[in-house]
Amino acid sequence: MCQLLGMNANTPTDVMFSFTGLATRADEHKDGFGIAFFEDPGLRLFVDHQSARQSPVAELVKRFPIHSGNVIAHIRKATQGRVALQNTHPFVRELWGRYWVFAHNGDLKGFEPRLHGSFRPVGDTDSERAFCWLMQELAKAHASVPSIDELSRTLAELLPLPASHGTFNMLLSNGQALWAHATTSLFWLERRHPFGAARLADEDLSVDFGSLTAPTDRAAIVATQPLTCDEPWQAFDKGELRVFVGGQGRRIG
Amino acid sequence: MCQLLGMNANTPTDVMFSFTGLATRADEHKDGFGIAFFEDPGLRLFVDHQSARQSPVAELVKRFPIHSGNVIAHIRKATQGRVALQNTHPFVRELWGRYWVFAHNGDLKGFEPRLHGSFRPVGDTDSERAFCWLMQELAKAHASVPSIDELSRTLAELLPLPASHGTFNMLLSNGQALWAHATTSLFWLERRHPFGAARLADEDLSVDFGSLTAPTDRAAIVATQPLTCDEPWQAFDKGELRVFVGGQGRRIG
Repeated sequence: MCQLLGMNANTPTDVMFSFTGLATRADEHKDGFGIAFFEDPGLRLFVDHQSARQSPVAELVKRFPIHSGNVIAHIRKATQGRVALQNTHPFVRELWGRYWVFAHNGDLKGFEPRLHGSFRPVGDTDSERAFCWLMQELAKAHASVPSIDELSRTLAELLPLPASHGTFNMLLSNGQALWAHATTSLFWLERRHPFGAARLADEDLSVDFGSLTAPTDRAAIVATQPLTCDEPWQAFDKGELRVFVGGQGRRIG
Repeated sequence: MCQLLGMNANTPTDVMFSFTGLATRADEHKDGFGIAFFEDPGLRLFVDHQSARQSPVAELVKRFPIHSGNVIAHIRKATQGRVALQNTHPFVRELWGRYWVFAHNGDLKGFEPRLHGSFRPVGDTDSERAFCWLMQELAKAHASVPSIDELSRTLAELLPLPASHGTFNMLLSNGQALWAHATTSLFWLERRHPFGAARLADEDLSVDFGSLTAPTDRAAIVATQPLTCDEPWQAFDKGELRVFVGGQGRRIG
């Protein structure tokens, strides 16, 4: 199993604290990591097939404050597909002149959809195949980029199919919103005024968000397991889809 | 004008020496840089809208030996499109289950092709528009991934159209081959046994390739201007297209 981290904020925010928390879990999840940062429609993607504990790329991410409104990160323990760069999440495709980023935790058994559209996997994971199918179906459902609400409704219709094939905890973003879907384990948290301090669950590291933020700042975090031990993380229900915009989430359907 | 660097090798090779040479030219080319490394079909892309002289991402690339068979790098001086991450070369798309990477030097005037296919620009450069058009036309010309020879013939047919709109020095790779096309300034060099020493044209730095290579290694380098001052760089003719495979190039058409 892998671990996911997503962030959506109303003000470009760095995720150094949360990524450090995620990276401490990389001992068991040593088969690569990846992190994608949206800056407006632009995108930075860092991937490595080394562990997030050792990778010089992960070191850069922990030290270099990249401010982003939407982030998706993944640390991988290979279950399907070899340890190779082409199998490292998150995956990226372009649709309607926007980049789309996807990361998945879980295994899908026997999900072999027909890919007759313009999206094909480069590697050999079930995750990238599911992402290509999702992109293909989004492209078929809308002629051009729809509203966040319309996209959320379409995703609510599409996601039960791959989810019926196994575990489908996933994060998806187009730089405008972050969608999160859970079947087994995913938690969310909204940080907003008044900001307090938080301590990482796995490492002796605290941060006082009050001194780093403005009162209007808002950020939502989604993770496979709560990353801090003193904040009100909430578990997703089985099959729950949430969309986060401007640091605020709501349940779809 | 921007500067391009491409590398194609028969053995995964690092480009730290050549990238250092390119980055010294970043004083005039301060509006971002990008570098893409293929590892088999997998891809690492580093982009930054800071200069390659100052960027911590560029620093990582100069220090961390990433071994790759195909590399495309670009340092940018913005002429078209704002300084923003979405306008930073190289650009990436997926076609036929392979990543394609493209970087361009020059301006295209009035090249506004109809984009009715599955490739749309995310940013607002003429370069990304030309790349999307190229991907669309390749997708129309072949039902699935063709041979390098067939791709080279198709590119030879397609490239004169954008090139007729201005300056079109460009590099393209799908991880199997590197294509290079020049209209004004592009040089190529093949390094092979017996390897000698080379000194960077812009910086007091030398490397002895003989001590770093095996006799069967071969690498081809393509750059806007010769990067070293003691190797036999050859200039492209106006309109020349070359394909490099396994560190060896040939002229198309």
